Amino acid sequence: MIKKTALAAVSIAAALSTAAFAQDAAATPAPASDSTVFVFNTLLFLISGMVVMFMAAGFCMLEVGLVRSKNAATICLKNIALYSVAGLMVYLIGYQLIYGVAEGGVIAPLDFLWSADDSDPVGTGYSASSDWYFQMVFVATAASIVSGTLAERIKLFPFLIFVAVLTGVIYPIQAGWVWGGGWLDANFDDFAGSTLVHSTGGWAALAGAIVLGSRTGKYEGGRVHPLPGSSLPLATLGTFILWLGWFGFNGGSQLALGTIEDAASVANIFVNTNMAACGGVVTALILTQVLYKKVDLTIVLNGAIGGLVSITAEPLAPAIWQAVLIGSVGGVIVTLAVPLLDKLKIDDVVGAIPAHLFCGIWGTLIVPLTNKSDGISYLNQLIGVISIGVFVFVISLAVWYALKFTLGVRASADQERIGLDKSELGLEAYPEFSPG
Amino acid sequence: MIKKTALAAVSIAAALSTAAFAQDAAATPAPASDSTVFVFNTLLFLISGMVVMFMAAGFCMLEVGLVRSKNAATICLKNIALYSVAGLMVYLIGYQLIYGVAEGGVIAPLDFLWSADDSDPVGTGYSASSDWYFQMVFVATAASIVSGTLAERIKLFPFLIFVAVLTGVIYPIQAGWVWGGGWLDANFDDFAGSTLVHSTGGWAALAGAIVLGSRTGKYEGGRVHPLPGSSLPLATLGTFILWLGWFGFNGGSQLALGTIEDAASVANIFVNTNMAACGGVVTALILTQVLYKKVDLTIVLNGAIGGLVSITAEPLAPAIWQAVLIGSVGGVIVTLAVPLLDKLKIDDVVGAIPAHLFCGIWGTLIVPLTNKSDGISYLNQLIGVISIGVFVFVISLAVWYALKFTLGVRASADQERIGLDKSELGLEAYPEFSPG
Amino acid sequence: MIKKTALAAVSIAAALSTAAFAQDAAATPAPASDSTVFVFNTLLFLISGMVVMFMAAGFCMLEVGLVRSKNAATICLKNIALYSVAGLMVYLIGYQLIYGVAEGGVIAPLDFLWSADDSDPVGTGYSASSDWYFQMVFVATAASIVSGTLAERIKLFPFLIFVAVLTGVIYPIQAGWVWGGGWLDANFDDFAGSTLVHSTGGWAALAGAIVLGSRTGKYEGGRVHPLPGSSLPLATLGTFILWLGWFGFNGGSQLALGTIEDAASVANIFVNTNMAACGGVVTALILTQVLYKKVDLTIVLNGAIGGLVSITAEPLAPAIWQAVLIGSVGGVIVTLAVPLLDKLKIDDVVGAIPAHLFCGIWGTLIVPLTNKSDGISYLNQLIGVISIGVFVFVISLAVWYALKFTLGVRASADQERIGLDKSELGLEAYPEFSPG
Repeated sequence: MIKKTALAAVSIAAALSTAAFAQDAAATPAPASDSTVFVFNTLLFLISGMVVMFMAAGFCMLEVGLVRSKNAATICLKNIALYSVAGLMVYLIGYQLIYGVAEGGVIAPLDFLWSADDSDPVGTGYSASSDWYFQMVFVATAASIVSGTLAERIKLFPFLIFVAVLTGVIYPIQAGWVWGGGWLDANFDDFAGSTLVHSTGGWAALAGAIVLGSRTGKYEGGRVHPLPGSSLPLATLGTFILWLGWFGFNGGSQLALGTIEDAASVANIFVNTNMAACGGVVTALILTQVLYKKVDLTIVLNGAIGGLVSITAEPLAPAIWQAVLIGSVGGVIVTLAVPLLDKLKIDDVVGAIPAHLFCGIWGTLIVPLTNKSDGISYLNQLIGVISIGVFVFVISLAVWYALKFTLGVRASADQERIGLDKSELGLEAYPEFSPG
Repeated sequence: MIKKTALAAVSIAAALSTAAFAQDAAATPAPASDSTVFVFNTLLFLISGMVVMFMAAGFCMLEVGLVRSKNAATICLKNIALYSVAGLMVYLIGYQLIYGVAEGGVIAPLDFLWSADDSDPVGTGYSASSDWYFQMVFVATAASIVSGTLAERIKLFPFLIFVAVLTGVIYPIQAGWVWGGGWLDANFDDFAGSTLVHSTGGWAALAGAIVLGSRTGKYEGGRVHPLPGSSLPLATLGTFILWLGWFGFNGGSQLALGTIEDAASVANIFVNTNMAACGGVVTALILTQVLYKKVDLTIVLNGAIGGLVSITAEPLAPAIWQAVLIGSVGGVIVTLAVPLLDKLKIDDVVGAIPAHLFCGIWGTLIVPLTNKSDGISYLNQLIGVISIGVFVFVISLAVWYALKFTLGVRASADQERIGLDKSELGLEAYPEFSPG
Repeated sequence: MIKKTALAAVSIAAALSTAAFAQDAAATPAPASDSTVFVFNTLLFLISGMVVMFMAAGFCMLEVGLVRSKNAATICLKNIALYSVAGLMVYLIGYQLIYGVAEGGVIAPLDFLWSADDSDPVGTGYSASSDWYFQMVFVATAASIVSGTLAERIKLFPFLIFVAVLTGVIYPIQAGWVWGGGWLDANFDDFAGSTLVHSTGGWAALAGAIVLGSRTGKYEGGRVHPLPGSSLPLATLGTFILWLGWFGFNGGSQLALGTIEDAASVANIFVNTNMAACGGVVTALILTQVLYKKVDLTIVLNGAIGGLVSITAEPLAPAIWQAVLIGSVGGVIVTLAVPLLDKLKIDDVVGAIPAHLFCGIWGTLIVPLTNKSDGISYLNQLIGVISIGVFVFVISLAVWYALKFTLGVRASADQERIGLDKSELGLEAYPEFSPG
C-alpha cells in the first residue's frame, strides 16, 4: 500500500516467488541481479510514466470534443497549462509533502527544490527520478479531471491558481496519508488511486462546480438543455488515449518489474484494467439503449472511463470476471449519475464527476471483495473514502470561495456568450468553421 | 510458427546464439538468467500489446476521417464497442479456441472464463496474462478492419453481433490452425498475421460488403460517385497511429526478447516494418501522380497500410531492400485495387479490402522468397491462404446472411440519407458544423 | 558525445558506478550480464525510437492545425511522405555518411544498402538495427521541421526533393562531424541534437522561407496580417505528441540502459526534459499575458516546444531548477521571436524557426553552464553552432535556389488562392465544412 518499495522487500518477494515456483519447474530460476532489477523497476516507471503523461493529451481531446467550439481553444490552453503548473508545483513542494509526511509526523521539514541526489538508488531498487516522474504525472491527472467539469465558464487565471493549490498542497497531503506512509496507510488499500487521484480530482471539481454555478442556459426554465460538444471524434480519440494511458497508470503502480512475480502481476493488472473498461463500455451501451432507445456515444465513452476508474483501486487481486463486473458497475454508475447531477443542477460539462468521483468511490469500497489481505475491510475502505473526501472537498470549497471573493472565478455573461476563446484568448479554435 | 515458445527452446537458442557470437567476441557473453528472460519476454508482450491496443484508436481515426460527418459518431461508437466486444469474446471462448485446438484435436474441451492460473509461468518463459493481452488486441485488430468497409450503412447491433461471432469463433478457429499448433502449423508461415489477422478481417469485410450492398448513390447511373471523407487530417492521424502500433504488432510477434538473438530479431523486424511502410507510401505517391496526374492522399495513406500488411507475414527474414520492395508492391496493390473494386460495385468505404485482404494475400504468398526454412514453399503458403480464406469468407457470408434475414443488417434509405448519427444515436458528431 | 558507445566503456562505467555505490549499500550490486545489458540497450533504442517515430504524427497535427483548411490535406501528405523519403534516404546513403566519416577521414567509401550484418552486436552492446532505427527517426524529425515553415505555398515535388537531399546528405554530413566521431566531436556537446537535429531543420527551413517568400497577403501594405490556423485542438494534440516523443528523443540519446548508472541517467533526462517544457509553457503563458493582455495559445504551444528544444543539447547535467530555467528562456525566445521574424518579413507558418532554430542555438550555447566536463566551453559550443549553421544554411540555400531555377518551388498565385489541396491534390481536407 506504500508506493515506495524497499529493495529488501523486493528481494524477499523474489526469493519467495522463486520458492513457490520451485514445485512446478525442474530447475528453480535464479533471481535477476540487483542491478538488473534496478533497471527493470526504473524502466517500468519510465514507460508507465510516458503513457500516463500522454493521458494529459487524452483529457484534452476528451474535453475539447465535449465543449462547444467557442471554448475549444481555451480548454486546450488549460490542459497544457495545468500539466505544466502541476509539474512545477510537484517540484517545488508537492513531492516533498507526499513523502515528507511519512518521515516526520504531520509534515516533515521540507527540502524545497527536490533533487534525485537525496535518494540512494541502490537502497530503493529504482532510480529516484523515475519515481518522481511517475508521481508527477499522477498529480497532473487529478488536475486534468477538474478542467473538464468547469469548462466553458471559468476564468483562466483563477483556474490555474486552483490547480497550483491542488497539485502543490491538497493532492500531496492526502496522498501522503496513504502512499507516503501516513496515518491511513496501514489498512486502506487504493492500489493505483481510485480515491487518491480520481476521487480527489472529482471532489475538487464538484466543489468548483458548486461555487461556479451552471452554464448559462443549461437549466433554464427548470428543464435540462443539452449543450452538445463540438467534436465527438476528438472526444473518442481522447478516451482511447486515456485507456492506453491507464495501462501505465495501473500497471506502473505495481512499482516493480524485476522479478517473475512482479512481472506477472503487472501483466495481470493490464488484463484486468482492459477488461474492466470493456465491461464499462458494453454495459453503458446496452443500458443507454434500454433506457433511452438510443445508444449514447458520450455515455459509452464515459463508460470506458468509469470502468477504468472502478478497477484502479485494486487491479491486481480480482479474477478477470470480477474485473469485468467491477467495471460494468462503473458503466451503470456513469449512465445513471448524469440525470442525477442534472436534477441537482450541478453542471459537469464532460461527466467527470460520475466517472472519476462516483466510480472512484465504488472502486475503492469494493476492494475487500477481492483483496483478502489482513487489515483490508469495508469499514477501513469507507474511512479512507470519507476522510479523503471530506478533506479534499472542504479545502477545495474554501479555495474556490476565496478565489470567488477576490479575483472572481466566473467569466461574465457576455464573455460566456461569445465564448472564452474570443474573450480570454482573443482567437478562435476553428476560425474558418465557426458557427458565427 | 507457433505463437507459444517454450522456455527450453528459448534457452537453446540463447546458447546457440552465444556460441555463434563466440567467434567475434573475446569473451562469450553469458546468457541472462531465466528470471530475467521471463521479465523481458513479458515486457515485450506488454509494451507491444499497448501500442497494438492503440491501433484501435488508429482505425477509429482513419475511419472517422473517411466517412461523411453524418456517420462520424456512429463509426466512433462502433470502434470502441468492437474493441470491447472483442475483449469479452476472447475472454469467454476465443482464447481457449485458439489454443484448445492444439491440445485436443479438433476442439479441446473448453475452460470457460480463462484464468492466468491455468498456465505455468516459469515453464513458458513469460507471463500467461501478458500473452493473453497480446493475443486479445490482435483479435480486436481483425474486427476493426470490418467496421471501415461497412461504414455509413450498416445497423449497429447486427454489426456488433457479427463482431462477437468473428472475435469469439471465426478468428480463433483459424488462428488455432496455425498459432495454436493446428493442422496448418507445420509448413505455413504467417509470422505476425498477414493472413490470420489482416486477410481474416478483410474476408469478413468483403462478405459483409456483398451482403450489405453499396451506399446509396455510390454507383448510381453506372458511374462511380466519390463520397469524400469528412476529415483527412484525422484519417492521417489514424494512419500514423497504425504505423506506430505495427512496431508492436510485428515486433511483439517475435514472442521473446530475453536473449541477444531475440532482441536483435525484434530490432530487425522494427526496421523492416518501417521500411516496408516507407516503400508503400512512396510507391503509392508516385503511382497516383503518374496515373491520375494528382497525388491522392487517401491512397497514399492506404499505401502505408498496404506496405505494413505486406511485410507482416514475414518481417524478420527479408533484407531491408526486400522489405522495401515487398511494401512497395503493397503500395501498387492498394492503388490499382480501388478501381477494380469499384468495377465490381463492391463499396469499401475506407479501402480496407485492398489494404488488408489483397496485401495480406500478397505478403503471405511472397514469404518463401526470403524465408528459406525447411517446409516453407509457395504451395504451402497458397494452401494456407486458400484454406483460411475459404473458411473465413464462407462462414462470414453465412453469418451475414443469417443476420440479414433475421434482424436485418442495412439501415433504411431514410436513415442512410439523414445519417446514422441522427438515426441510430440521436446525436451529431459535429453539431455546430453540420452541412445541414 | 559520440552516439555510439562501445560495450567496453559501458562495462567500465558499470564497474565504476558499482564502486561508487558500494559506500552506501551493504552489498555491492553485481552488474548485469553482457547479454542482459545488450537487451536493455536495444530495448531503449526501440522504445525511444517508437515515440520519436510518433513525433512525425505530432508535427503533422501541429502543422495541420496551424494551416488554413485549404492546405490541410497537403500538409498531411507532406508529413507522411517526408518521413518515408527520410527512411529511404537514410537507408540508401544517410546512415553510411553519418558513421562513414568516422572511419575514413572526410567520407569513407560507402556501402550502399546498409545491412545490420555489417555490425558485431556483441562488440557494440546493442543491436545494430535498433541503433539504425533510432537514428532514422531522428533524421525524419529534422525534415518535419521544414514542412511547417514552408506550408501553404510550396509545391509538393520540389519540397520532397529537398527533403531527400536534406535527409540523405546535409543532415548526415554534419551529424557525422559530431555523432559520427568527426572533427567536431572532441569538444562539442550536443547530447540529443539541439543543433544537429533542431537547428539543422531550422536553418534548412529559414533558407527555404527566404527563397520561397511569404504567403500572399501576409505582409500586404506593410502590416502583418495574421492567417489563423484552422484547428487549434489538432495543433494542441500535436504538441502533446511531440512532448511525449521527446522523452524518447532525449532519453534514448543516453544510448544505454543496462547499468544502474545508465538507467538513472535516462530517468534524470526524463525529469529535466519534462520540466524544461513546463518552464517554457508557463513562461510563454505569463509573457503573452503581460505583453498582449491575452494569453496566446499558439505561442504557449510553441513555448512547450521551445523549452524542449532548449534542453535537448544537455538534458542530463542540469539540476531540475536549471532545466526549468533553460526551458523558460526557450519560452521567452519563442514569444519574442515571432514579431522579430515578422519585421524581417520571414513567413514561418508554424513558428518553427523560433522554436527549433533559435532555441536550438540557445540550448547548445548554454551547455557549459551545467556540463563541466573537460573540453566543454562556450567557445567550443559557439564554434559548433556556427560551423553547422553555416554549412546547413549555405547548402540548403543552394539547393533551394537550384530547385527554384529548375522546377520552381512556389505554387502559382492562383493555386495559393484556391489552396494547395484542390490545386495539387484535387481534393479537400474537410469537404463538408469548407468555407467556400
